[in-house]
Amino acid sequence: MFDVAVVGATGAVGTTMLRILEERGFPVTELRPLASARSEGRQIDYLGRPRTVRTLTADAFEGIQIALFSAGASRAREFAPAAVEAGAVVIDNSSAFRMDPSVPLVVPEVNEHDIEGHSGIIANPNCVAAPLVVALKPIADAVGLERVIVSSYQSVSGTGQAAVAELTEQSAGYLAGAEPEPSVYPHPIAFNALPHIGDFDESGYTGEEQKVADETRKMLGLPDLAVSATCVRVPVMQSHSQAVHIETTEAIDPDAVRRLLMAAPGVMLVDEPGLNLYPLPRDATGRDEVLVGRIRKDTSHPRGLALWVVSDNLRKGAATNAVQIAESLVTRGWL
Amino acid sequence: MFDVAVVGATGAVGTTMLRILEERGFPVTELRPLASARSEGRQIDYLGRPRTVRTLTADAFEGIQIALFSAGASRAREFAPAAVEAGAVVIDNSSAFRMDPSVPLVVPEVNEHDIEGHSGIIANPNCVAAPLVVALKPIADAVGLERVIVSSYQSVSGTGQAAVAELTEQSAGYLAGAEPEPSVYPHPIAFNALPHIGDFDESGYTGEEQKVADETRKMLGLPDLAVSATCVRVPVMQSHSQAVHIETTEAIDPDAVRRLLMAAPGVMLVDEPGLNLYPLPRDATGRDEVLVGRIRKDTSHPRGLALWVVSDNLRKGAATNAVQIAESLVTRGWL
Repeated sequence: MFDVAVVGATGAVGTTMLRILEERGFPVTELRPLASARSEGRQIDYLGRPRTVRTLTADAFEGIQIALFSAGASRAREFAPAAVEAGAVVIDNSSAFRMDPSVPLVVPEVNEHDIEGHSGIIANPNCVAAPLVVALKPIADAVGLERVIVSSYQSVSGTGQAAVAELTEQSAGYLAGAEPEPSVYPHPIAFNALPHIGDFDESGYTGEEQKVADETRKMLGLPDLAVSATCVRVPVMQSHSQAVHIETTEAIDPDAVRRLLMAAPGVMLVDEPGLNLYPLPRDATGRDEVLVGRIRKDTSHPRGLALWVVSDNLRKGAATNAVQIAESLVTRGWL
Repeated sequence: MFDVAVVGATGAVGTTMLRILEERGFPVTELRPLASARSEGRQIDYLGRPRTVRTLTADAFEGIQIALFSAGASRAREFAPAAVEAGAVVIDNSSAFRMDPSVPLVVPEVNEHDIEGHSGIIANPNCVAAPLVVALKPIADAVGLERVIVSSYQSVSGTGQAAVAELTEQSAGYLAGAEPEPSVYPHPIAFNALPHIGDFDESGYTGEEQKVADETRKMLGLPDLAVSATCVRVPVMQSHSQAVHIETTEAIDPDAVRRLLMAAPGVMLVDEPGLNLYPLPRDATGRDEVLVGRIRKDTSHPRGLALWVVSDNLRKGAATNAVQIAESLVTRGWL
């Protein structure tokens, strides 16, 4: 049994982490919720009992063995070293350490063994990259993978609870003819589509688009993989979708891909378009699997394939994957 | 001055056609609105005067010189020949005749001269293909075009007025905790994303995805162009967006593309991401231009480019383009 801290316990991902620790029966002795000072003293529920939120400080990790961080990159940089110093292994959901060559970036279905070499911090990937590698790994292993083009349809819960509230209020306002001003996003998100997630860099890509490319390469162990993404926020509450066009090294037909994915860990094949069955964000919400469908040849390339990949960004895209990493640490004896 | 019929005058596109004929001061003598029998006798407004809707029949085209059809493919097949027989030139917004080799498929900014060879019917393109070729034509002419990958974010008005009502009612219901059953779409569209527009064929592509590929090739005059699309319905009322990744024959840098597009007819460049300026569906709505931004290298290919293209599907994607074709017929003497 383990003493577990959840850092950012009152946020969208932190709250989901608590639910997933419960659901999966993670062997917790003490559950210590940590958050910013403004949540100090707030009661949150874990396994039917109230737990008091404590302020995140450098000395809050005493006795903790596993610290699940979901508090953003700057807090991770500030407090993860203290947690490691106190003897905890940190599983961090932010981008702070993901591309650090000494930090494993892990989706257990894809590269679980990378966890073994950790030095106290393990990074949890971006919410588009995580489901993407779950879907692509079996294909890459079978026939090789050379290029990936992703266009995402990302839900507002990826931004946080304030964004869910903003979409809710803006939608109601729009329908009533009195839309409130945007505050979380620079433009209205209700009934709109914003091609802007993260900051723009010199190249014209956003931070989110760069993460999808960099993290996909790192987790698949393919440093030369060609990846380009267009990341778009859409008025969906939860679960991210992605239209994925890939080029493999050897050609593979869609039926063979379906067989691979049916057998792949963490994948739920939803691919009977004639029966109107394909992955949908509202169907993926609350599930831990990555839903994959619309599998077909990309007819614009002799070794092209197209797929439609949907997963719950708060679960497999964040909390579930972090808890799975914690499970690997425990069951493999890598703690 | 011309006698003009608008077929499907009470629908989403037909209504927009009337507004655009007014806005552009098209030289109309008689404006004859035609629709199905259930709209017979309904009054619609044109230039501030009520006009009585007549039932679409084979003998409804007497004296008409230009017939703008927006009544679906089966009605176009049934009634367009009668209109031509009566002496009208038909501009048809459905897919019925688009891929007929004897029928010009035209976006005036791209291939206006194809109109000249018409035999009575001119096809108006699909609402994703039309803006796509407006954005790609200047690039294709400058450096050649070899491959196009499109992921669309299509609004419900592309389906029609009933779909706009469905999104409105479903959104309100969802927010109130009592969502009505879907009827226009097979799944809820509110706060969801449906990768299903048109019927699925054997290859796994939808009719919409096939139209984007076929029509793009035909209008650009590039029969061997490699095109693959993923078409997705999103909870947006009006204007379609598309993430476009292309491969050119010769490499071209993003600044050169910006210069080309700034000078291109029908294009509005909206590409200052550092100022949060990029095309948005709610900004494109009500405009006739195709908005293009997010122009950057597609770093996954040595001659790759990525763009974000947004346009009002009822205007440039349908009604505006049809009226532009009518203007070409008149001003070029091709009627």
